[in-house]
Amino acid sequence: MLLGKVVGTLVATRKEESLDGLKFLVLKQLDMEGNETGGYRVAADAVGAGLGEVVLYATGSAARQTKYTHQRPCDGVIMAIVDQVEVDGKVTYDKSEAV
Amino acid sequence: MLLGKVVGTLVATRKEESLDGLKFLVLKQLDMEGNETGGYRVAADAVGAGLGEVVLYATGSAARQTKYTHQRPCDGVIMAIVDQVEVDGKVTYDKSEAV
Amino acid sequence: MLLGKVVGTLVATRKEESLDGLKFLVLKQLDMEGNETGGYRVAADAVGAGLGEVVLYATGSAARQTKYTHQRPCDGVIMAIVDQVEVDGKVTYDKSEAV
Amino acid sequence: MLLGKVVGTLVATRKEESLDGLKFLVLKQLDMEGNETGGYRVAADAVGAGLGEVVLYATGSAARQTKYTHQRPCDGVIMAIVDQVEVDGKVTYDKSEAV
Amino acid sequence: MLLGKVVGTLVATRKEESLDGLKFLVLKQLDMEGNETGGYRVAADAVGAGLGEVVLYATGSAARQTKYTHQRPCDGVIMAIVDQVEVDGKVTYDKSEAV
Repeated sequence: MLLGKVVGTLVATRKEESLDGLKFLVLKQLDMEGNETGGYRVAADAVGAGLGEVVLYATGSAARQTKYTHQRPCDGVIMAIVDQVEVDGKVTYDKSEAV
Repeated sequence: MLLGKVVGTLVATRKEESLDGLKFLVLKQLDMEGNETGGYRVAADAVGAGLGEVVLYATGSAARQTKYTHQRPCDGVIMAIVDQVEVDGKVTYDKSEAV
Repeated sequence: MLLGKVVGTLVATRKEESLDGLKFLVLKQLDMEGNETGGYRVAADAVGAGLGEVVLYATGSAARQTKYTHQRPCDGVIMAIVDQVEVDGKVTYDKSEAV
Repeated sequence: MLLGKVVGTLVATRKEESLDGLKFLVLKQLDMEGNETGGYRVAADAVGAGLGEVVLYATGSAARQTKYTHQRPCDGVIMAIVDQVEVDGKVTYDKSEAV
Repeated sequence: MLLGKVVGTLVATRKEESLDGLKFLVLKQLDMEGNETGGYRVAADAVGAGLGEVVLYATGSAARQTKYTHQRPCDGVIMAIVDQVEVDGKVTYDKSEAV
């Protein structure tokens, strides 16, 4: 899994039927210190993530292992909202202190 | 999932039987602002996408989770036509304003 | 899927039993204009592709969705021989004109 | 599989239900000499790995093939703690000598 | 699939139970001329490959399609020992002539 920051939304009315009801969010990819790496990903939201939140997302077939994404043509899912990341003994991200 | 722009078509008459009837489109990969990134992908079309349209596509096993691509040797599928992308509070793509 | 050009063959007599009978071809990866990108891939041949032909290949679990590769430890398959690619209104590859 | 070094932890209370009880660790990716490559990965821990340990991790659907991760939306798992790596006849990593 | 050269071994005593008995080898990734590309991979050995041998390996779910790796958390497998590679009409690797 990798870290991402929810920065946007994507609207698509014409789509594969089975995608109805799925919410697509735009993520900026983050490194483990919480810095943006330049990459992005569109992911289905399985946890009710909000704009600005740092999340954990999974790609590939793992993205279909939530009740929202099961058997849908979806290769990326947000499956956790991150509270805290600690690297080398330092807290590199803390949701309660994030602006 | 990632964003792509439909820029072309691919014709192949000699192919694995199970691919009969699938339409292959050529996509330029886009970043989340809608700029071309230099990469491309050939994807099966599950939504009737047209040339010039910005689409959402999935890769890997997710690409076989549409009725068109089920159990076919296909690792990329267009499963949504994008209406609007909003990033950091700004609309970065709007189908109705696209040329 | 991506485009590749068949440039060679690979022979392996000592291999996982289930691979018996599979033909392995060496592909140079192509961009959508048909230029070599520097990468390569070894893929199983599901369509009887010949040296010099431009093909479409799939990777990942999709590579096992042909009758030749079903349940075999194979992560790349040639599943179509390309006749024509058209990008931005121009034919970038035409099998009948290829040397 | 690739080598990683456990450098941190990730806490997430709001997450897909099926992830309850999974421990997420932050890994720095290593090359085969044990040097950091600059990349990272968040992985579920299937073996009780500790901070500072060099581990082997698997990604993709393989990450769901442990009893801890079965059918969970998880695309990375630590499934072995490395004792020794030998490359070109030299020991490049030995757990008993690691600081 | 890609080419690799077996350059080392990896020992791990503490690991997911289902991995017992699997042999892990360290591979240097090769291009199609047999040159090292700088990358590496740890793969399970399904064919009894030896140090110095050039092999074909598969990644992703394909890596679990051998009797040795079935349903194990393994994302890379050596499933063939290469005898000969021929590219553009020239033999770029021949096991019988390799030092």
